[in-house]
Amino acid sequence: MGNSLGKKFVIASFGESHGKCIGIVIDGCPAGLPITEKDIQIELDKRKPLQIIWSTTRTEADKVDILSGFFNGYTTGAPICLAVWNNDIDAGDYKKTKGLLRPGHADHTAFIKYGGYNDYRGGGRFSGRITAGYVMAGAVAQKLLKLIGVTVLAHTVEISGIKTDAGIVKISAEAIDNNPLKCTDPPAAEKMLSVIEQARKAGDSLGGIIEGIALNVPAGLGEPVFDTMEGDLAKALFAIPAVRGVEFGAGFTAAKMKGSENNDSFSIKRGKIVTVTNNSGGILGGISNGRPIIVRVAVKPTPSISRKQKTVNIDKMESAGLEIKGRHDVCIVPRAVPVVSAMMAITLCDYALQAKIIPEVIK
Amino acid sequence: MGNSLGKKFVIASFGESHGKCIGIVIDGCPAGLPITEKDIQIELDKRKPLQIIWSTTRTEADKVDILSGFFNGYTTGAPICLAVWNNDIDAGDYKKTKGLLRPGHADHTAFIKYGGYNDYRGGGRFSGRITAGYVMAGAVAQKLLKLIGVTVLAHTVEISGIKTDAGIVKISAEAIDNNPLKCTDPPAAEKMLSVIEQARKAGDSLGGIIEGIALNVPAGLGEPVFDTMEGDLAKALFAIPAVRGVEFGAGFTAAKMKGSENNDSFSIKRGKIVTVTNNSGGILGGISNGRPIIVRVAVKPTPSISRKQKTVNIDKMESAGLEIKGRHDVCIVPRAVPVVSAMMAITLCDYALQAKIIPEVIK
Amino acid sequence: MGNSLGKKFVIASFGESHGKCIGIVIDGCPAGLPITEKDIQIELDKRKPLQIIWSTTRTEADKVDILSGFFNGYTTGAPICLAVWNNDIDAGDYKKTKGLLRPGHADHTAFIKYGGYNDYRGGGRFSGRITAGYVMAGAVAQKLLKLIGVTVLAHTVEISGIKTDAGIVKISAEAIDNNPLKCTDPPAAEKMLSVIEQARKAGDSLGGIIEGIALNVPAGLGEPVFDTMEGDLAKALFAIPAVRGVEFGAGFTAAKMKGSENNDSFSIKRGKIVTVTNNSGGILGGISNGRPIIVRVAVKPTPSISRKQKTVNIDKMESAGLEIKGRHDVCIVPRAVPVVSAMMAITLCDYALQAKIIPEVIK
Amino acid sequence: MGNSLGKKFVIASFGESHGKCIGIVIDGCPAGLPITEKDIQIELDKRKPLQIIWSTTRTEADKVDILSGFFNGYTTGAPICLAVWNNDIDAGDYKKTKGLLRPGHADHTAFIKYGGYNDYRGGGRFSGRITAGYVMAGAVAQKLLKLIGVTVLAHTVEISGIKTDAGIVKISAEAIDNNPLKCTDPPAAEKMLSVIEQARKAGDSLGGIIEGIALNVPAGLGEPVFDTMEGDLAKALFAIPAVRGVEFGAGFTAAKMKGSENNDSFSIKRGKIVTVTNNSGGILGGISNGRPIIVRVAVKPTPSISRKQKTVNIDKMESAGLEIKGRHDVCIVPRAVPVVSAMMAITLCDYALQAKIIPEVIK
Repeated sequence: MGNSLGKKFVIASFGESHGKCIGIVIDGCPAGLPITEKDIQIELDKRKPLQIIWSTTRTEADKVDILSGFFNGYTTGAPICLAVWNNDIDAGDYKKTKGLLRPGHADHTAFIKYGGYNDYRGGGRFSGRITAGYVMAGAVAQKLLKLIGVTVLAHTVEISGIKTDAGIVKISAEAIDNNPLKCTDPPAAEKMLSVIEQARKAGDSLGGIIEGIALNVPAGLGEPVFDTMEGDLAKALFAIPAVRGVEFGAGFTAAKMKGSENNDSFSIKRGKIVTVTNNSGGILGGISNGRPIIVRVAVKPTPSISRKQKTVNIDKMESAGLEIKGRHDVCIVPRAVPVVSAMMAITLCDYALQAKIIPEVIK
Repeated sequence: MGNSLGKKFVIASFGESHGKCIGIVIDGCPAGLPITEKDIQIELDKRKPLQIIWSTTRTEADKVDILSGFFNGYTTGAPICLAVWNNDIDAGDYKKTKGLLRPGHADHTAFIKYGGYNDYRGGGRFSGRITAGYVMAGAVAQKLLKLIGVTVLAHTVEISGIKTDAGIVKISAEAIDNNPLKCTDPPAAEKMLSVIEQARKAGDSLGGIIEGIALNVPAGLGEPVFDTMEGDLAKALFAIPAVRGVEFGAGFTAAKMKGSENNDSFSIKRGKIVTVTNNSGGILGGISNGRPIIVRVAVKPTPSISRKQKTVNIDKMESAGLEIKGRHDVCIVPRAVPVVSAMMAITLCDYALQAKIIPEVIK
Repeated sequence: MGNSLGKKFVIASFGESHGKCIGIVIDGCPAGLPITEKDIQIELDKRKPLQIIWSTTRTEADKVDILSGFFNGYTTGAPICLAVWNNDIDAGDYKKTKGLLRPGHADHTAFIKYGGYNDYRGGGRFSGRITAGYVMAGAVAQKLLKLIGVTVLAHTVEISGIKTDAGIVKISAEAIDNNPLKCTDPPAAEKMLSVIEQARKAGDSLGGIIEGIALNVPAGLGEPVFDTMEGDLAKALFAIPAVRGVEFGAGFTAAKMKGSENNDSFSIKRGKIVTVTNNSGGILGGISNGRPIIVRVAVKPTPSISRKQKTVNIDKMESAGLEIKGRHDVCIVPRAVPVVSAMMAITLCDYALQAKIIPEVIK
Repeated sequence: MGNSLGKKFVIASFGESHGKCIGIVIDGCPAGLPITEKDIQIELDKRKPLQIIWSTTRTEADKVDILSGFFNGYTTGAPICLAVWNNDIDAGDYKKTKGLLRPGHADHTAFIKYGGYNDYRGGGRFSGRITAGYVMAGAVAQKLLKLIGVTVLAHTVEISGIKTDAGIVKISAEAIDNNPLKCTDPPAAEKMLSVIEQARKAGDSLGGIIEGIALNVPAGLGEPVFDTMEGDLAKALFAIPAVRGVEFGAGFTAAKMKGSENNDSFSIKRGKIVTVTNNSGGILGGISNGRPIIVRVAVKPTPSISRKQKTVNIDKMESAGLEIKGRHDVCIVPRAVPVVSAMMAITLCDYALQAKIIPEVIK
């Protein structure tokens, strides 16, 4: 249960890390959207393991296969099933450590919930690989949002406490894609790479913060009191493994501000009402106000570390030591960046379809 | 749209700040729960305006009226409609400022979304009064959770940057209810009261952070990959006006930690697997692990301040100054505390009913 | 559970036959719809007990009370709660027969499902009175559909085997409302009245068939493969107590036809493609085709009869005889007619809002 | 949109008649169900084209491929994606008739809804082939229902007006499977075969009626007032192309009965309350009562006939004649029989999982 999301642009996830494939079904994509496998592949490639030493060396070809909902170069209005086939499956490592609960992973809770029947290989459904499905759906959502001029971006703003300088950062899709850490403040990125390298040597891992930005989102989207834009974005973002917090606009900082500081005052600009500041992150009362949507997510350090950890062998119900050998990212943050933008795009696309800002047939 | 929440314990909100009533319909409450109006009233009273100077002086009697789903002292399994009737309605103040967009409020986005037809009096649907409905539903949810030994608490952990000392805090329902700020660290509460008094004098307002705790939640609740416990709790919590951020366990702090610090290692305690620490806030892979669920929400400062603010009159489309006179809380945090526990209880109750840990007929 | 229906025009039902009220919450009604209590009252009055001898003599004032979602003469876009207060409650009769399962009623299944906690008075949630809520929501739906030129009608086409003559019938809202049986074939109506009178004398009851018609429904509504127009209309109609069958267009007769007879051939009429016949009842592949939507529902005879019946006393677990005295309709069909049109209107309005044929703000 | 169904056993359909595959994703199947491809294949084979002259000669190998949710012989609790790959695709026939609206098919409504972008080959999403997905999901549902002793059967009770004799019929899975028409009254089946042969020669087609039966369904399932068992079964059954009517128990016949005839009186049998007759079809007040669930669906004659028909070429907007050559069933009824039982099983399984009669982990 719980593997589908959305109301009008509904995504249903399936597949396991070491099963036959990772897939996603999109129900509700309008007919008439010109799309190619390349459009999707470009996004998929962004979450590939980095070609630098501190990332997993698993070769994930991750070639998208469009299984349905597509005809003569256009979407048909029918459900679109997208899959990547798992080729480089080496489950040998996992068998050896079967029963050993990896701290920070879902091994324990999955065992309880599914009575031990879950596919534990590589974390199964709880693997970061599942997000390949999110990214494929996000690629379709991005194409739809482009039709109404909405741009969704995400970038790394902090790794292990090293923050980007908002004064320096110049956010653009190009700048983000060109940096291996998806960080648009080069000096900060240098420092981040350096702490990552230290952590790698220490057999440890690091977390960070990703900021998502949606530009040109029409005012009026969001359905309070429960289907607020914050609530729906947060729910979508917490579906990314490792996300531990979500904040909008001034976020937790707002808790320290005075009303006179935090309130965004209104003014008229070219005949339109705008807020002078954007502490609200583009959302008031759960509804978009036309200003950029700003969200930040806290990503915990990768739980897989090569350092020895204390744990329990659940098969034998005894204490055990664990050294995770496999192929793991020291810092998952950069690879999570395209997933953050994917989940934002999926949610905003759902909203835009509900509001019929994107029509059901593209002409 | 968007005014209902949940799958098995479904709440549907209705009513406006200055309309006839504030109401909630609960669909899915098991039959056979002994309940009285007093059970609900106790919770409602917790969100009453404080009897100290810095809070609104509006007299909100807020007496619960059970309209359906109740027979001979027990719930019947039918939808339970609960209402509080609005008596002390003085809309005069609001008419004078009609058209003036209050910064930090939803006046602007509501106007756009509903084409100016929305009941603007006192914020209408966007008023904090709407949460009276949440609290009534939360009272029912708390009664159900008590059946399975689950306790849900919330308390103030920060106001305007003044934090409680986790070493001192002794969290109990009694300690929370006995403090006017719902803060269980008396010295910190003293300081908080002092900054609130300063803000009141300055015609300003303050925000803060509330921590929610759920004890004894069974392991195995949550339905990844999308209906994660974090995602569903966050969505429920963002339905509280003024919430700008939600984090679980170590939350945003986890982003600064190393994997070796953040990972909760496992050990065996009385034949059960437990985590030694609880940085995960009781949730791994979107599923509860049996440890306390820990969530923190950032509450922005009350947008209504008596200081003069710059804004726009949307009826005349011209710049304007605004001084909000009405009756307003300088710091909404303490009154939001029972709402946080209500939303947590509603979500956990929904989960427990989905998992049939709470049966459909109470015996 | 299960007390709400729809996706964009969501109705949530509450209340019991002998509780405080019968209510309905509509979530998703556009803002800006001018509406009065009279608009709703007119529809409510159509399901009043008939002023002729064979119908219940319970005095159901059934005055609508608009509790929310309404401001200055217009809907606001917020949830609309509508209630009728139960005044003429005489539960005395029911107490005497408590424990006696009334054949054809839900007493038995309700007892099992709700463990005996259900409000059994007058059938509680299973009473036909619940449909007062449907009719109130239907009145709002009809007002919305009128904006796009859609007309929804229902009429009696058969009672106890006496059928109307399709050649004679002239269907109009006026003709239907003017006939006490909601039957537009006066000679047939005469015969129906006569068999009803006979059944009344015999202490028995009768069933019949109601036909629902929706004119001018835009082509293209319906979301196959599962959210078909037939499926959603059928589900809505089976929510009316006593409905045992639903068929569209030629319906069960189609099972006896040949393809060459049943297929509706296409032709061009004033530049538009139309079907020459309408055996499909205006729906092909689950999607409306622009022709009238035609549905027929089978209504079983009222289960409450004054004749002695064999049953069981569930409190004593022993056989018993039952003579139902109370106030009951000999034939519920005419009173179910406005409920059929209400459920059709609600479903079609939901579809039209999903397709944004009706906008979210009425201007 | 609209391509998923259910609350706890959620199926999501994808694929087209002449696309890469027909698929279904099941979300909510408990973990620990031992299942093999053979279990599913057996059900799939039941909807194969019959090896007698009057049925389509398209070779549909329809071999099930389990893509996810399955590990070491058991379901894992993760979404189960099942697919059959389309091999024998000959779209040539369809290209020639592109633009010609086939009467009785969804060509017209699909064109309107999807703006001409829909995959029209073989009816695309509107093909009967889509039901291969339903049948695969139904096979899993049947395995789950078996765990709680529920048996779901369907059989042919009428073709072109020729009815089976209820006195003769002996319903068993074996008897149904052994008859090419899925009819357990051999003399009636002979007559049916004869009229089918006549229709084939005449280039025409025939419809009929299928009865679905569910035995041993626990009392108490169904969630009135809207999620009634009748409503949910009807919605599921109308998802089968060609179904035009659905009735329960006495169904449309009940409309002609008196209350004293139609009411099922109660008696006590081996300490349990049962109804003496079963005119209600096992459902009262939308809730199962423990007696067999009885439903009948009207299936229209196959719209594809080789006889010349009048239609319109939508590309040229001109009248046209149409002779459908392709490979088509003269009477689809027998092939729809396993689809009826599949949809019933899916719905009942969803109910049983909601009620936790089937647990979330099979042990």
